[in-house]
This record gives sequence, structure tokens and C-alpha cells, in this order.
Amino acid sequence: MPVLVMKFGGTSVANLDRIRRAAKRVGVEVAKGYDVIVIVSAMSGKTNEMVGWVEETSPLFDAREYDAVVSSGEAVTAGLMALTLQEMDVPARSWQGWQVPLQTTSAHSQARIEEIGTKNINQKFGEGMKVAVVAGFQGISPEGRITTLGRGGSDTTAVAFAAAFDAVRCDIYTDVDGVYTTDPRICDKARKLDKISYEEMLELASLGAKVLQTRSVELAMRFKVKLRVLSSFEEQCDEAGTLVCAEEEIMESNAVAGVAYSRDEAKLTLLSVADRPGIAAIIFNALSEGGVNVDMIVQNISEDGRTDMTFSCPTDQVARAEQALLKTKGTGDLNYAELVADKDVAKISVVGIGMRSQSGVAAKMFKVLSDEGINIKVITTSEIKISVLIDRKYMELAVQALHDAFDLDKVA
Amino acid sequence: MPVLVMKFGGTSVANLDRIRRAAKRVGVEVAKGYDVIVIVSAMSGKTNEMVGWVEETSPLFDAREYDAVVSSGEAVTAGLMALTLQEMDVPARSWQGWQVPLQTTSAHSQARIEEIGTKNINQKFGEGMKVAVVAGFQGISPEGRITTLGRGGSDTTAVAFAAAFDAVRCDIYTDVDGVYTTDPRICDKARKLDKISYEEMLELASLGAKVLQTRSVELAMRFKVKLRVLSSFEEQCDEAGTLVCAEEEIMESNAVAGVAYSRDEAKLTLLSVADRPGIAAIIFNALSEGGVNVDMIVQNISEDGRTDMTFSCPTDQVARAEQALLKTKGTGDLNYAELVADKDVAKISVVGIGMRSQSGVAAKMFKVLSDEGINIKVITTSEIKISVLIDRKYMELAVQALHDAFDLDKVA
Repeated sequence: MPVLVMKFGGTSVANLDRIRRAAKRVGVEVAKGYDVIVIVSAMSGKTNEMVGWVEETSPLFDAREYDAVVSSGEAVTAGLMALTLQEMDVPARSWQGWQVPLQTTSAHSQARIEEIGTKNINQKFGEGMKVAVVAGFQGISPEGRITTLGRGGSDTTAVAFAAAFDAVRCDIYTDVDGVYTTDPRICDKARKLDKISYEEMLELASLGAKVLQTRSVELAMRFKVKLRVLSSFEEQCDEAGTLVCAEEEIMESNAVAGVAYSRDEAKLTLLSVADRPGIAAIIFNALSEGGVNVDMIVQNISEDGRTDMTFSCPTDQVARAEQALLKTKGTGDLNYAELVADKDVAKISVVGIGMRSQSGVAAKMFKVLSDEGINIKVITTSEIKISVLIDRKYMELAVQALHDAFDLDKVA
Repeated sequence: MPVLVMKFGGTSVANLDRIRRAAKRVGVEVAKGYDVIVIVSAMSGKTNEMVGWVEETSPLFDAREYDAVVSSGEAVTAGLMALTLQEMDVPARSWQGWQVPLQTTSAHSQARIEEIGTKNINQKFGEGMKVAVVAGFQGISPEGRITTLGRGGSDTTAVAFAAAFDAVRCDIYTDVDGVYTTDPRICDKARKLDKISYEEMLELASLGAKVLQTRSVELAMRFKVKLRVLSSFEEQCDEAGTLVCAEEEIMESNAVAGVAYSRDEAKLTLLSVADRPGIAAIIFNALSEGGVNVDMIVQNISEDGRTDMTFSCPTDQVARAEQALLKTKGTGDLNYAELVADKDVAKISVVGIGMRSQSGVAAKMFKVLSDEGINIKVITTSEIKISVLIDRKYMELAVQALHDAFDLDKVA
């Protein structure tokens, strides 16, 4: 039987009614002749609740215990989904990560998938089971402890299963009906895209568009998994939602495909760092070892042999960053006057594969922001995106102005 | 190092504050030089919430999925407890049932413990870990699926660990400060017992006193595990609570040690069953195969070759009982006119090892109830207890009257 992977996010399984609705969608695909692997998130809010408990208990928590706690929500929805399907006479059972097994690295709370065992599930498919309901977001380490893949890891789980089982497609059911040119909640001209390339989706995902997790898109691109994003709250036809696919399948496109933003970015500045070779290596090595995901980096002009070093990281890693730097300062390898953290910033990005062939996108972006009186604090670019850090209060304004300026409400 | 087992029930870990308080108690024992195994329940209310979801999803649920869902609450508290201990600089880690491993039978939702592997935890104790926090109530089946031990199974887990690790004692921390002559909530003359024999505790536990689960007392008796019940809400000395111990350690006792009651019992009557040899075997075999725990049984006087058969079972198994009997009726082996379920009953029991040597307890009990105008529907007795089924509305009255009549407020 061909295998289809269907993933339901937290809002799609938020209560028993929604689980029933999701199960009906699964039933429709089973009736078409698929063996279905369903990946479920925890009921919306549950994981946050548990993360809150862990952080309140232990601000610098043992990530192994964090994983043991926060992985529990998916086990609940997996079991409930299996029961719901059984009630509809669809042969189903639930699997937790360690039962599959989904083997990961030992990097707790942000583990990477090493291998998915297909034997157990395929054997059950062979025995007549039609749906394997798998708890997303979790796996097992070589030491036999529960790991999690980081927030949004259920998308990654889904794509990894689609690759491992050679699925015809991976459908990601969520609370929006596809990928938009920007967030419709802050820009009412936002338009749904029928198709988007892996590369663009990757930039949009990593830049804060919450639709899909970055790593899931990376994985999909690497293993050429057809990925579809669609709403679990509407009746769906086969062409619904947004297809994330290879660039070649998209005929023509705007220079800019979308505008993304992120509130979860903080700007940190190390004041008065010795400006000597190797100092950046020391700083960013310390941050890396402290588990801090550094995004943008800027080094100011040097004065009297000392300089300021600015970087950004997720706001929830600011404490870790501070600790990691203080620890390194303690060893004597690093000297700085002060570490200043600014959590009142936002990152705005424009993304599009068309940028490769169309010039002037950066100039236009900076002019639009300047015309609105918005000061740019940090800039980074890649082949298909330009990102800037600005004061958070201008975030919505910046997104709307850029969406207008690049005509994103119009089909190319 | 000597091993001490400490078990904290749902109300003792109901929130982060209470988990901290419990962790402090653990710290006190660690400071005395014990290697401690902590068994935790789910936060109070969590398991019931999940059981509710399962039952709403699927009234005749697949017990394997039930177990996968309801076992998740203990994983959360185990992780949070380990984190709390780590914050207090006590080396600790959490273990789920399958990680220990705690191997059970495949009888999902009421599995029995087959074996507890001590190697993994002992190895960690050898490496300097002081506390192993174990998720109670759960284990792993030979098929590699999560099992649960039935409600209150965390007590059983605790005693089984105490036996497997040859612990000096098993302390059960709960929301009451010991075992009482009856439930203080319905009888204000109830008195705390300093000691009670395994046998009496066993009867009280199985008869509805919620302090300890039956199987945990059985296990403690079999493996001679010293069991102490005490409150997690009070500062405790070494003599606090109630010690459950061998009969020989109790000098003198009342004929009756306590009065127990249970609301969770339903009375079922099969009307007009053929009165022929083997019919009881057919009925109770069907119920047993349907997973129904039958407690009391009464057969009425036969008339015209037909009789009525009355039995009691937990109220939440009435649906199962009805289904099991209907199924057997379908095969033609069993014939009956009607099955009448009465959930409006309560079971009252008086318990005491003194009954063995002191006669007249039954007669006195029946007279006390009769004097209060309470009709007895079913009676069962054992060597050290007498139980009766009565209308639920008389439950409190019956308990109070019996407590008075047997002078339970006075020390023997």
C-alpha cells in the first residue's frame, strides 16, 4: 500500500472534538487506499504549560529531565487519536518515539533524528493495521533516555517519517489554510500562496513564519518529500493548501515571495571587547557550547584596540548566553566591560528566489523602512533573503509597508 | 548504602510548591545517609482528567491505548521532582517504568508486576546518584507496550521497589497522617492507629479505605516490607503516621480495628436464571473474561427451576458486566429475563484480627444496623471481616453507629 503521512498540530488536536475531526480526515485517506502514519502534537497549550513548570522549577534545567516532562503531551494525543480511529472501525494503534524507535542524538531538548526503525510499524501494516499514530516531537537517545527535537519538532518528525517510509506526500494540518505572503494577523492584504519553493519556505520558516519548522523543510528538501500545508478546520480537496515543492515546479514568481517577522529575537551587545584575532572565535565558541543559537552578528568599528560586538539570539536563550559569557570571562580568555541585552527588538525579512535574478531588492527594502522613519539596527543577507533588526514597536508597520511596496497582494 | 523508598501520592505532588515540599522531605532522608527511591503519582486530578478523555472517546476502550494515555501524568511529576532535587544539589534523575525496567504482565490497565530490574538504578547509585525518582503506576509488557497497574498502582510500585531493593522501609506520603479507625470525613470520632497488622490493613484497603491500595499491602505482607503511612503536609518525626506491620508486633487489640465503606460498588441482579448445575460457573466465567471484578455473590431461593443471581462489582465495570453477560446470552449458554443494576448502594465492613478470638461481632453488627432501621441487601464474611451492602443513603449513619458500638474511639 502507498503510505501517506498526516501531521496534526496542537490546535488541530486541542480537544476531543477536534481529534474526532482530524480522525475523520484520516479516515478519508484510509478509504482512498493509503496506509497512513499520523503524527500528532500535544493538545495546544499543554507543552507550554509543562515548559513553564520546568522553568519555574529549575531555570537552568537538566535538559534530560525537561525532555522526560515535556514529551508527555504527545503520548496523550497519540493514544486518544488511536482510540478515536478505533471507534470509527479504522484499525489503529499509537506509538511513542522510543517504541518506533525514532533514534536521535543525545542533544536533549534539541536532538537530531538519526534513524527511524520501519520494521515494527511495517509489520503492523502487514497485519492489517491501517493507521500508525505516532507521538511527534520525541525520540530516544543512545543512552535510552527520552529526547525531544525542539519546539515544533512534530513537523520534523512527520517529514522524517515520510522520508523513511517513502510516503507519497506529507500533509501538515494546522490552524491556517496554507503559507501566506506574510502573517494575515498583522497585514490584511496577505495572500495565500498555492506553491512555494523549499528554499523560500526554509527562509520563511527560519525567520519566524510559524507555519512550518525550519528543520522539517530542510529535511523535506533533502529527501524530496512533497509537503502540503493545509487547514484542519475546513473540508479539503486534493488541491487545498500550499504545496512546498522544488523550484522547478513554480513557473514564475515575484522577486519577493513573502515578508517574515520574529518577535523572539533579542539583541545582545558586549561592550569594550579586546579587538584582537581569535576573540570572535572565543565568544561564539562559548555561546555555542552554552547551547545558544546565535543568528545575526555585527562588530563595531574598533577604537583604542577595543570594540563592541553585537549579536542576536532567541529571547529565551538570553540567560544562557549571559551565563556562558560570564563563565568564559571567569577563565580570563575573554574580557569585556558589560553585556547589554535588548529584548525590545524584532526581525523583519523579505524572502524570494526571484532575488537571485532581480537586483535592487535590498535598496528598495531599506528605502521603504527609511521612508517610514524606522531605524535599522543590524542587517544580514543571504542569496534569497534580507533581514533587519528594528525596534519592536515598528514591527507591524514595517511588515505592512514592505508587503505593499513589493506588491505581494498581487499574483505574479 | 541502605535504601529507603518514599512514595508521594497525587495530592502530595499537586503543584510545584508541594513537589518542593516533598523534595525537602527526600533531602532530609538523603542527609541521613540513605539512597532513596522516590515513587511519584501524577499531580492530583491529572489521571482522572485523562481517564475522562479516554472514556468519552471510546466507552469500551482499547486498554493498551488507555495505558499509553493515562501513564503520562507520572512521567511529568517524576521529571519535575528530579529537577527540584537537582536544584537542591541532590543528585537525582527520573525513570519511567519502561526505563527501569518494571516488567509486567500484558493485562493492560490492571497489569501485575513480574520483575523489577535493579541493575540500571543500582549502577547510578554506584556513580553517586542519591535519588532515583520513578514514575509510579506504570510498567512495560512483554510486547514492549506501556502498561498500568490499576488505580492507586503507585503504592504497589513503591512496595515492589522496596522489596526488589531490599529497602529498610517504604514510607507512603499522602494527604492523611495515618490509618484511622474509619474515615474522619464521615465520622468525627475516628481515631488514628499507631500500628495495624498487614491482614487488617489488607481488608481495610480492599474495602474502600483509600489510604493504601490492596495489592500494595498484599505485596508488603508477602515480602515483609515495613510500610509507613504518613502525611506529606506536616513536619514528621521517625514515629509519625501509622506503621503497617506483622500481627506479632501489636500487643493487644479491639475485636474490631476499623470500619470501612465503599461507594464504588454496584449491585447487579440477573432475574430468572435457570437453576441448574454449572450456571454460576458460566456467569462468573463470562464476567471474569470480561474483566469484571466480582465481589459479593448471593443466589436467591429457587422457584419453578429458576432463580435470581445477585452480585456486586465496581460501578465503573457495570457496562462491561452488562456486555459480557449479553454476549454470553447470545451464545445460548445462558438465559435470563433481565439484568437489573443498582448503583445506589454502599458497602460497609468491620475489620479486626480480634474477631478470630472474640465471637459475636457479626450479631452485634446486624443488631446495630437493624436498630437504625437499615436493611441489609447482601452479606459476606471472612475470618477477620464482615461486609454488608446497604442503601447508599444510610452509609454515613451506618459507619457512625458501628464506630460507636464497637468503641473504636477508645484505645484498646
